[in-house]
Parts: sequence; C-alpha cells; structure tokens
Amino acid sequence: MKKVNVALLGIGNVGTGVYKILTDNAEDIKHREEMDIQIKKILVRDINKKRNIDADKSLYTTDFDEILNDKDIDIIAEFMGGVEPARTYILKALESGKTVVTANKEVLAKHWPIFEEAAKKTGAGLYFEASVAGGIPIIRAITESLQANNIDSVMGIINGTTNYILTEMSEKGASYANVLQEAQNQGLAEPDPTNDVEGYDAAYKLSILASLAFHSRVHVENIYIEGITKINTLDISWAKELGYTIKLLAIGKKNGTVIEVRVHPALIKNTHPLASVRGAYNAIFIHGHAIGDFMLYGKGAGEMPTASAVVSDIIYASHMDKHRYTTFENTYAQPKAITFNTDWTSEYFIHLRVLDKPGVLSKIAGLFGNNGVSIASMMQKQTEEEDHGSVPLVFITHETSEQSMKKSIEQIKEIEDVVEVVSLLRVID
Amino acid sequence: MKKVNVALLGIGNVGTGVYKILTDNAEDIKHREEMDIQIKKILVRDINKKRNIDADKSLYTTDFDEILNDKDIDIIAEFMGGVEPARTYILKALESGKTVVTANKEVLAKHWPIFEEAAKKTGAGLYFEASVAGGIPIIRAITESLQANNIDSVMGIINGTTNYILTEMSEKGASYANVLQEAQNQGLAEPDPTNDVEGYDAAYKLSILASLAFHSRVHVENIYIEGITKINTLDISWAKELGYTIKLLAIGKKNGTVIEVRVHPALIKNTHPLASVRGAYNAIFIHGHAIGDFMLYGKGAGEMPTASAVVSDIIYASHMDKHRYTTFENTYAQPKAITFNTDWTSEYFIHLRVLDKPGVLSKIAGLFGNNGVSIASMMQKQTEEEDHGSVPLVFITHETSEQSMKKSIEQIKEIEDVVEVVSLLRVID
Repeated sequence: MKKVNVALLGIGNVGTGVYKILTDNAEDIKHREEMDIQIKKILVRDINKKRNIDADKSLYTTDFDEILNDKDIDIIAEFMGGVEPARTYILKALESGKTVVTANKEVLAKHWPIFEEAAKKTGAGLYFEASVAGGIPIIRAITESLQANNIDSVMGIINGTTNYILTEMSEKGASYANVLQEAQNQGLAEPDPTNDVEGYDAAYKLSILASLAFHSRVHVENIYIEGITKINTLDISWAKELGYTIKLLAIGKKNGTVIEVRVHPALIKNTHPLASVRGAYNAIFIHGHAIGDFMLYGKGAGEMPTASAVVSDIIYASHMDKHRYTTFENTYAQPKAITFNTDWTSEYFIHLRVLDKPGVLSKIAGLFGNNGVSIASMMQKQTEEEDHGSVPLVFITHETSEQSMKKSIEQIKEIEDVVEVVSLLRVID
Repeated sequence: MKKVNVALLGIGNVGTGVYKILTDNAEDIKHREEMDIQIKKILVRDINKKRNIDADKSLYTTDFDEILNDKDIDIIAEFMGGVEPARTYILKALESGKTVVTANKEVLAKHWPIFEEAAKKTGAGLYFEASVAGGIPIIRAITESLQANNIDSVMGIINGTTNYILTEMSEKGASYANVLQEAQNQGLAEPDPTNDVEGYDAAYKLSILASLAFHSRVHVENIYIEGITKINTLDISWAKELGYTIKLLAIGKKNGTVIEVRVHPALIKNTHPLASVRGAYNAIFIHGHAIGDFMLYGKGAGEMPTASAVVSDIIYASHMDKHRYTTFENTYAQPKAITFNTDWTSEYFIHLRVLDKPGVLSKIAGLFGNNGVSIASMMQKQTEEEDHGSVPLVFITHETSEQSMKKSIEQIKEIEDVVEVVSLLRVID
C-alpha cells in the first residue's frame, strides 16, 4: 500500500478538520484509495498551546526547516492564510520537490505564477481546491470535468460572510451595521471585516477561478472590486418588491480574447438559481459551450467542508504519477493576447433621493435619454424615512454601458433638486 | 504529444456531439491537455445513411470486430443505449485491454460487476460520467472530490423527461396525458415513454450513484420504483398551496450497514434547492459528513451536455497511467454485510375522495391514530370536479413508517364513505 507522509502548516480551524478526517477516516481511505496517509509534522507557533485535538506532542514543531528537510514528507498542506510566511514556505516546499496543497486564496492569487514555475522545475504538485468556495469542488470540476468546454462565463457567490450579512438584511430587514455586529459576535465575520465586506476575498477567489476557466492569467489588479458596505435596507426592500435579491457576485466573462472580471453587489432575479443561495452557502454558476448552464452549491467555508477539499487534494495528488500544471496561456485557437474590458454593459438599479417637486422626473429622464440610457421601470414612493420634503426615486434601466451610466450619474448629481444618489447597483436577470 | 485513438460506437445524438467537440476543439485540447485525440472508427448500422456531420466515409464501419482488432485504438466510447449488443461490445473491448467510456446507464447498472472484473484483469479503464445526469460531473465529484467523506445521503432529480412533464403540469395546470403528448410531439419523451415515466431510467442511474457513494453494490432490484403516471393536477395544485412542488426523486440513504434506495414522486418543500429545478434540468443533492450539504445542477441530457461528459472521460482516462477500479465493498470500518431497508420512515401526503357526510373524518382520523400515524395537517375543499356528493380530503402526516402507512391505507379503503384513495405521496421537507 502506498504510504504518504503529510505535514500540516497550521492547526487552526481548517487544520483541525484535516487532522480529524485523516485520523478518523484513515481505515476508510486505506480501503477505498489504497493509500496510508500519515501526519508526520504539524507546524505551530506554540507547541504547548491547548488544542481541540489529541495529537502526539512529538508531531508539533515550530521550525519549518525541520519539515522542509524531512525527506520522508511528500506533501505539505498549508492553511495559515495571508501572504507571509505562507509564500516563502510554499515556494521552498515546491523548490525542494514537495507537493503543496493549499487553502490560502490570497497567497495563491498573488503569487501563483512563481509557484507554478517552481513546481514545474522540480515536478512537484500544486493543489488548491480548498482555496475557492470551501468544500465545493469547483477547481476539480473545471480542470477534470469541463475540459471539453469553452467556458465563457463564471458567476458566483463565493464569500460566505457577505452572503450571510445580505441574507440577514433581506430576511430580517436589519441594517448593515447591526447585522455585521451580530456576525462579528457570532464569529462569522472577522473583527476587521474589510477583506470580506470590501470584496477582496471574493476577488482573490475570482482571480483563481477566472484564470483556470479562461486559461489566461487574471490578476487581482484586473478585477473591478466594489463591496457591500453601502447596501441599505431600502435598496433591499425595493429590490424584493421588484422580484430581485441583492447578492455580492463575482463575475467573469470571456468573449474571444476579451475578458471582463468584477466583484460587486447586484440585484439578481429571484428565478435565477443563485438568488436562493442563503446564508453562509456558496454557489458557482458556469456556462460552457458544451455543458450549457451548470451550478455547484455547498458550504463555502468552515472547518469540515474546507478540510474535505484539502484531504481530497492530498488523496488526488497522491494518485498522480506525474503532476500537471496550469499554463495561463490562452488556447492555440485564440493566439492573440488577452485584453481586459472595463466598459461592460449591464442593466442598472439607481436609487435617488429627490425633492418632491414637479419637473424633477422629467429632468432626470431627459438626461438619461441624452446619454443613451433607456429606462425599463421607475418607482416613486412615500416612505416613513421621508425628510425635508425629499422622496426616494428608483429606476431600473435596460442594458447600457458602464461609462454611459457613470456619465449620467455625474450629471444627475448636478441637478439642483436631486438631494442624493443613494445607490447605483447592477442588475442581473 | 500523447496520441489517443478513439472509436465511437453509434453516431446518434450523443455520438454527434462527441464528434463535434473532438473535431472543433481539437486544437484547444492539444494545447490544454497535451494530447492529440483522433477518431479512428465509427460503428454504424448503415454507412450510407445521411448524417449531420461531415466525417470521412472511411471512418465508418458496420463491423465491431474491425474496431476490436485494431491495435491502434485505445478507447472505445459507447452510446448505443440498451443492453445488447452494448454489453457484448463493452465486455470484448475491456477483455482486449481497451478502455471503455460509456453513456449507457442501463447496461452499466445491470452488468457493472462483470465489466469491472474484465477491466481489472487486463488493466483497461471503465469510465461512465455521462451515464448519470448527462453533463453534470457527479461521478467525478464522488470519486475524485468527496473521497474524505462518509456520504450518507444522495437525493436527485435525474430524469429530465419526467421533470419536464411535472414542471409543465405545475406551471401550466395541464394534465399528465396532455403534457406527455406534447413532450412526445417535441421529441422530449420517447414514443414508448415507459422507461422514463415509470422511473426505470432514474433507477438505473440511482443504482450507479448509490453504488459509488455508499461503496456498496446497489442492484436495480434493490430499488423501490414508482413512476409519475398517477400524478394528477389536483395533487399538484394542493401541493402548491401547501408550499411544496411535486418531483420525481431518486433517493439513497445509508445508515451504518443499512441502505435504503427508492425512486418515487414526492412533495418537496419549496425552500429546498431541488424544488426549483425546472424542465429538463437535473440536480443531485448529497450529504457527506465533512462537506455537509452539496448540490450539482445542470443539463441532464442532450447532445452537447452529454458529449461534454464523454469527452471529459476520454481526456481523463488518457491522463491515467494506471486505471482505478470500483470495489463495491463496504469499508473496513464497517465490515458487516449491507442490508436493504424497505420499511423507511417518511411524512406522507394522502389524497382521498370521501362522501360529504358527518363522521367520515373522525373515522379516518381514528384509524390513523390506531396505526400510530400522527396527522400534521388536513384540508377539505369544495372543487369544481365534485361529483355524487363526494369531496377531496387531503392529509399530511408527521413522520411514520411506510408499513404503518400502507396498513392505514388498506383499512381506509374499507371505510364505506371513502370513495377512492386518489394519491399516496411521500413528503420531503
């Protein structure tokens, strides 16, 4: 029976799950996969810290070199998060010929090409199923199941924290600030929630997803990023009334050699399968020329779901006689260089606060018309929050370009009777 | 570059899709996968038949032995459907060491063990992603992504024809007979629809799914099978009113060494992700001890989606240095023999037609009580269809055993004022 020795870098949430699976399911894995996976070392900062697992003390080390220099260790599984020291450890491991399994989206999104290069040189493997959407096997689906497809669209809910916040706001009518506070109290949001609520975490994951799906290197810097901090309860209740749900979406599209990648909140039609993805669940909706529409749905984070993906990578990597690599090159069929489009088209939801005077609507409508923006629907309503004679006014537009919309918004701000442009959100049918 | 020669058995719907992908995407596949896949032979009944593809005439043959004896052919891809001659061809191919990729659920469900045995002997590969749920990569998800999981539940909508019929009935209020007729006219249902509407097709697929997910051989004969032919518009509209959608579900559960497998229509709560799977789409909902709830959604049939799965298998198989096999043995951790449970528990929906007389309800309720069946809700309604003074009466029960329910139904039939037991359906929350 094949023997595989693994070192774990970190034994927090995910590491604990990996330890549990490799211990509790050892006999099952031996039987089903014909391999004996042993945890040989666990890198920690403090050996004596009290932990939820009963690992033998001799497994712990505070010295990465002890792991690096152990010739018996085949695979290093990293779940430290952040860039350093993860970047250095991953690189050293690959350079020494050890296969790396990582759950770390940030370090992968930022330094993937140098990791690939190092891995190729030594023949080591680089696996990262757990880096996107926790337990959901989206990486393997793209690399081992959609090979026959030209994928032209990837759209996902890939950040559980923001989806939890938006779900709570939508279902309980609570404010962003209150729900965030509650999520922090429950440990569902970090004390500093920036990474999640500003969309960076989703952008790291989209960078990985789009690079794989489009066979092109998509840097985080290529991604337009907008978070959920400005979403208000009025937007949510109006969206609901119009048959939409507000979600933080990560969107990638490819048309020939043109790629468009963006993370932003959007109104998504309630009949779309992504609209019903609630709470901490994640889902990724893909379109390929052969498979058509395809969606994966599951838990995007958490100890055991993420560990499920990590252990799957360990087993998968151990079956490989020869590891394969990501090229980031476009196909032979489209040899031209990729360009990134930032002037995409979309339908828009515009929430204004205007003075309740005659003529305001006609000024705004005229201005949209001058910029070629066509209005699909309009709603004006008295609300309890009404103040100083101003009322909320909502437009949904037909498809128009981002630039035309931004130009319109700049001009709308100049209209005297417009008190505030409260929200500008994209709409997906 | 690795060269792979493939023979196609059949060039109908799926075969045409496979031909198109392997031809149109040849350069992409060479570039991404570093393999040159050539179609070397196509087995047909009539070489001169007019076809939708412009394949060279020299590729066609009517003689399977010509393919079998061609030493250059590595992989045989079969999409003939049915048992014979597919069974014989697959077996001969495997015995001669050729890898088989099949989309044929019936032959696989019925003869899988002899195929595995033959493949093991010669080291050939046996791949069948396309046999379950068309393009949806559920097989690879179980074998290559959920290895760390003890899967205890698999529940799916895995027959597109019946899901189309039930969706149309639900959304248009049309009768089963009318929708079936329309589906046949559109080519969405076979002239003889038995295989789909009686649940056999779903049972073949469940047999494959459950065998893999539970690491145990689940024969079609172990599966309880009930079709959708008795579903009426009244059931559907009442289900809707109660917040449910009626779907044909394939359900597999494993608890220790006890497996329960069944295909039957059921009322599923509208908040369940499977309830919103419409038309010809398929979806499979899985629960694993580590990953938690997980769902795959996509097109369950059709030329290109199914071809996507077949070509994925061809590429995947060609990357393998050593093929792996399904053991159908339970794990070391549970060495005891598997048993099949047929007395499962469920909530039930019972639709009766009773005489509109005092005392009927109390008789029925008393009878349920005597059999330990507890009522969760009851509805009685005047309908336009009312005749001879009889009215429809609907019960939903709390969880109870199948045997208690069947016994109750037998006794209810004996009550003089009960005109008819119209429907007995299971309910899933």
